[in-house]
Amino acid sequence: MAMISVNDALQTVLSVSKRLAPVAVPLLDALGKILAEDIRAPDPLPPFPASVKDGYAVVADDGPGDYMVITESRAGNDGVGVTVTPGTVAYVTTGGPIPDGADAVVQVEDTEIVKKALFGPKWVRILVKTTKGNDIRPVGVDIQKDAVVLTSGERLGASEIGLLATVGVTMVKVYPTPTIAVLSTGDELVEPTTGHLSRGQIRDSNRAMLLAAALQLQCKVVDLGIAKDDEEGLGRILDDAFTSGIDILLTSGGVSMGDKDFIKPLLEKRGKLHFSKVVSCLFLFLRLLFEMILMSYNLENNILTFGLPGNPVSSLVCFHLFVVPAIRNLAGWPNPHHLRVKARLHQPIKADPIRPEYYRAIVTWNNNDGTGSPGFVAESTGRQTSSRLLSMKSANAFLELPAAGKVISAGTPVSAIIVSDLRSMAVEVNSMPSDSAFDLSGT
Amino acid sequence: MAMISVNDALQTVLSVSKRLAPVAVPLLDALGKILAEDIRAPDPLPPFPASVKDGYAVVADDGPGDYMVITESRAGNDGVGVTVTPGTVAYVTTGGPIPDGADAVVQVEDTEIVKKALFGPKWVRILVKTTKGNDIRPVGVDIQKDAVVLTSGERLGASEIGLLATVGVTMVKVYPTPTIAVLSTGDELVEPTTGHLSRGQIRDSNRAMLLAAALQLQCKVVDLGIAKDDEEGLGRILDDAFTSGIDILLTSGGVSMGDKDFIKPLLEKRGKLHFSKVVSCLFLFLRLLFEMILMSYNLENNILTFGLPGNPVSSLVCFHLFVVPAIRNLAGWPNPHHLRVKARLHQPIKADPIRPEYYRAIVTWNNNDGTGSPGFVAESTGRQTSSRLLSMKSANAFLELPAAGKVISAGTPVSAIIVSDLRSMAVEVNSMPSDSAFDLSGT
Ligand SMILES: [Mg+2]
Ligand SMILES: [Mg+2]
Repeated sequence: MAMISVNDALQTVLSVSKRLAPVAVPLLDALGKILAEDIRAPDPLPPFPASVKDGYAVVADDGPGDYMVITESRAGNDGVGVTVTPGTVAYVTTGGPIPDGADAVVQVEDTEIVKKALFGPKWVRILVKTTKGNDIRPVGVDIQKDAVVLTSGERLGASEIGLLATVGVTMVKVYPTPTIAVLSTGDELVEPTTGHLSRGQIRDSNRAMLLAAALQLQCKVVDLGIAKDDEEGLGRILDDAFTSGIDILLTSGGVSMGDKDFIKPLLEKRGKLHFSKVVSCLFLFLRLLFEMILMSYNLENNILTFGLPGNPVSSLVCFHLFVVPAIRNLAGWPNPHHLRVKARLHQPIKADPIRPEYYRAIVTWNNNDGTGSPGFVAESTGRQTSSRLLSMKSANAFLELPAAGKVISAGTPVSAIIVSDLRSMAVEVNSMPSDSAFDLSGT
Repeated sequence: MAMISVNDALQTVLSVSKRLAPVAVPLLDALGKILAEDIRAPDPLPPFPASVKDGYAVVADDGPGDYMVITESRAGNDGVGVTVTPGTVAYVTTGGPIPDGADAVVQVEDTEIVKKALFGPKWVRILVKTTKGNDIRPVGVDIQKDAVVLTSGERLGASEIGLLATVGVTMVKVYPTPTIAVLSTGDELVEPTTGHLSRGQIRDSNRAMLLAAALQLQCKVVDLGIAKDDEEGLGRILDDAFTSGIDILLTSGGVSMGDKDFIKPLLEKRGKLHFSKVVSCLFLFLRLLFEMILMSYNLENNILTFGLPGNPVSSLVCFHLFVVPAIRNLAGWPNPHHLRVKARLHQPIKADPIRPEYYRAIVTWNNNDGTGSPGFVAESTGRQTSSRLLSMKSANAFLELPAAGKVISAGTPVSAIIVSDLRSMAVEVNSMPSDSAFDLSGT
């Protein structure tokens, strides 16, 4: 139970992280969340035969010629009770209802006003021949009545929010995102606001970093501050946290072999410990350790506690590898796993025999990935020591590097776990818009 | 001035959308924003020689043997004034300061307690030979004093927030995201809450959709509701909007050839119109139109107005093509352009001679993109009519398809503009974690 592989640790995390109960929220609060119900259209779209253009609703068989405009139909009850008979037309605007009797629309560009009287009817010259159904959207062509437009499990982006509005859903059932409390521990830690550091002090970076990481995943967050390495005080903080209505507790620090590392014994007393050390077997003779603890408090309420390491990089790597999939499970994602792509190394990388847990890199899309074809290229963020938070700077991927000790040559394709939105990494080289005659290269 | 190509329209948008003035915000409010200042480290990290492990600070030359523990150094002033002389050691914990005189750390796993007295000194047996500097982080090894740790123009993610905390920055200068007001126009529109639609009515979907799209980009939003097709009333709404402190106004509808399409004349009277129609020349004989207007109100305050089309799909496509780059410019992004990748078509696509503006597709990473190698695959979202919001459902990309009318065969690589976070699209096939012996395929 104590020591466990990365893969087994992840399986354990996934098995104990259960979907939260769905809640109904207003439309815009549902943005980015996972839908917890199927959505049907109560009415067809369009609900009436609608014009695609601004122009004239005509009887197609009439053909070109001069016609009297008997009504104007833009919206609402315009033209109700009026029938377009052969020899007459109706003015219509985009999206407006087609009056009875008309079976085609001629766009305004293909017409001329021939008589615009102050009183009495307007006359229009139809310049082109048209066909039945031209520029008319029949009832239900875009959405049929009773059609399922969105399915439970789908993620709600802007267009899905638009679809919900279209079908009249303004309160929607979604899986909520978890509430996450973050606690830093350690006598050496002082608030980031501290200007002058006394001997033996460092500023707490993990808390702000983990709160930010949780916010990026739309979680609600609770800042529990810094706890001293004091068994009794720490115990009280944990007890308060467990009864404050949170879903996940993240602690950092206090998990190694020091005589004041109290997180493990304190958690052990308060719930079910699932594991307390994660080993990444990168190669037969190399064992790399994440000192991370997973604990469930009260299996019914199911508060998951992740005892993350104190080192900022290890802490954030553990967050991505284990906490992110847990958050996704709680938030109802059908697939909690990370996106993995292949990326070619920009420079040779010496897979250090001790350090390279998950190698931090900047992955960009390149029109030439080194092979002459477009693809992802991975650039190192520099020295990979786990205390060096600068190795996480701008990193949007963790490379899964094999075979410690040997040099992996530039151009080698490696597996890259994508940990942030690739769109903010757009590079100049591929970012110019194309316009006329889009190119189909490689065909 | 009236009609303009997509590329020229984008260039105009970029030239009139200027970076907002930087503001200082608390750390967590800076998340996702662009840094507007260089950040230097006021002190080195670690600020003192620090232990990498829980164990004993020793004189390396001493070698294995039994040693008296003369102090314990975990944090703060622990061990101040005490010097580790040959023949003695000091207990240290991870991150703790190394006392004077010691030049290496032996981890606790390589030691044994030999005498744990109730009073008087503890003794420990050092089991291994170590070398000078072992498991000690020298002062400044992670961050040197006065080093620039973050540069103006960098985007602040979780690790960058952690870095700011590390160097004591808790108020940070960033480019704010714009405030965006959204107005729907049209006599046919009713609120999404409307249960029963009367003849000629449809529910307004554009407003919720555009508000959601702006929220996804961290913008502040103002909901201006639905305006009737009434010139005077619409003018008053615009005047109110222009004096309400917004940065961008998005209207939808009212931009085509109908006699009640008042957006263009109203905007013309109130500011500088940059263009009023965008043409996408996909092929020599094909012209595809976005009826989109760009206007600047008061060049000093520089409120950008986008008169978006009423069709929900055209409206959202225009939002991505033109409004997103504008938002990025205002928010200080060094590169406002979209990420474009190559993706292979999952199925043959008939490039319709009229409809296929920007073909909506679901792009996923696949271990076999059809060529035997990993790569992106693009799947159609179905019928591409611009009134069919379902063609935007789940779409994370717009394919730039050439040569209207002909069938583009499955497997053809095409340019794909990525319009949402690819991570939420992780597919089962490539999402299983690997663990031991990461594979280097293709080498
Ligand atoms: Mg500690
Ligand atoms: Mg209209």
